[in-house]
Amino acid sequence: MTFTSRTPRVVAARKLQRRRDRDQSGRFLAEGPQAVREALASGVVVELFATADAIEKHADLAAHAPVVSVVDDEALAGLADTVQPQGLVAVCEQVDVSLTDALAKRPRLVAVVAEIRDPGNAGTVLRTADAAGAGAVIFAGDAVDPYNGKCVRASAGSLFHVDVVRTPLDVVTPLREAGLQVLATSGYGADDLDTLADDGVLRQPTAWLFGSEAHGLPDDLLDGADRQVRVPIYGGAESLNLAAAAAVCLYSSARAQR
Amino acid sequence: MTFTSRTPRVVAARKLQRRRDRDQSGRFLAEGPQAVREALASGVVVELFATADAIEKHADLAAHAPVVSVVDDEALAGLADTVQPQGLVAVCEQVDVSLTDALAKRPRLVAVVAEIRDPGNAGTVLRTADAAGAGAVIFAGDAVDPYNGKCVRASAGSLFHVDVVRTPLDVVTPLREAGLQVLATSGYGADDLDTLADDGVLRQPTAWLFGSEAHGLPDDLLDGADRQVRVPIYGGAESLNLAAAAAVCLYSSARAQR
Repeated sequence: MTFTSRTPRVVAARKLQRRRDRDQSGRFLAEGPQAVREALASGVVVELFATADAIEKHADLAAHAPVVSVVDDEALAGLADTVQPQGLVAVCEQVDVSLTDALAKRPRLVAVVAEIRDPGNAGTVLRTADAAGAGAVIFAGDAVDPYNGKCVRASAGSLFHVDVVRTPLDVVTPLREAGLQVLATSGYGADDLDTLADDGVLRQPTAWLFGSEAHGLPDDLLDGADRQVRVPIYGGAESLNLAAAAAVCLYSSARAQR
Repeated sequence: MTFTSRTPRVVAARKLQRRRDRDQSGRFLAEGPQAVREALASGVVVELFATADAIEKHADLAAHAPVVSVVDDEALAGLADTVQPQGLVAVCEQVDVSLTDALAKRPRLVAVVAEIRDPGNAGTVLRTADAAGAGAVIFAGDAVDPYNGKCVRASAGSLFHVDVVRTPLDVVTPLREAGLQVLATSGYGADDLDTLADDGVLRQPTAWLFGSEAHGLPDDLLDGADRQVRVPIYGGAESLNLAAAAAVCLYSSARAQR
């Protein structure tokens, strides 16, 4: 039996494109072979919607899903967020953990995105933090939903690799209590990233705080952090974009902590 | 007199949203106060289209434009690429220079984007390269047009700070002849970025080659480069996105060259 866009299970899954429905159900959508593979490996797939063609092409993935529902092209397009969803959309259980649980593992590198609204930026930071070996990425305050379709896609599977945490803004104290120095990024920071690297400061377990490009970090986080750090600008640019700044900071820490 | 979307000068300017018309005319559009300010400082503005409100708000910019044409909201919206263009769109002369001219200045850091199609990615690399102190950014082969609206916006003014070059793909020899070591980025590179930094290799004048996320660098560039370099992956991610990888590589060079 092939489901159509009117089949109740498809209609219900499609609602997960809205944050309210994700929040209420504790589920989200992951689309495309890469994300579906990572979701399956994490054991969070509830149901895999796939076209007949995609099941044939990705038989290995279909074989590992607890439930596979065949959908027609229209139903799949309605579930997917992209123009070319490659035939696969999985309903997944949300994977985030509590701040306490994430910090109990004593991660040596943590990224905090505070009040970041752009899902593509947040997903890219998630991917970069994972690549740099961070144990956790914390979405603090009124940040984008990590299960937003664009964020899931930009994370390129990293949503399933690192501990994702959603918390209120006041994260500095618990981070410090978990043995992490707290470094706030700011274009006007008193400390220069390269100098901190030279002085060995980055060898310590570190939580990096990143704010939105438009507004920077909230004052409470800037003031509460151990240091305010700027990425040096060697040329004519006024600043780096968020994803680039996060890449430079997180990789400086990763390099120092090797 | 207020121009409307049917005024011939507005109609002609709007055509610059198309690559063909940009290529033919040697002009492009820059929108929003930041880009317009940088374009004015570079002396490349031919005509500034602005709403009456924007002229009042940005009187300093209007005062420095050779020609200011007042347009109604509809005409401005038609010229702009974004939903909130903030009332200003400038017609500019293209700023790119020849490879020979750019290399004659003996830059110590150069970024090459080869066959990169995504304008947002290309613009972000331009901005990051500028921040890292690169002297030139080279768009090689069948790459995105640097004057694409999205690229101009993502560059956040850096299009006007660094030497932008458009060339065919065979850039390795001229780069090397200009005293630059040529480092090709690749997920499978034999050399690890951190090891190169430790060994002092990054202190030398360097041209970094970046390929598209989907296809990587063309074989000719990979094979022709002095080294193939991978950014180390410390966590579960398969790779970094292009902008993040470029940020890590360019800043590693900037740090080593201080």
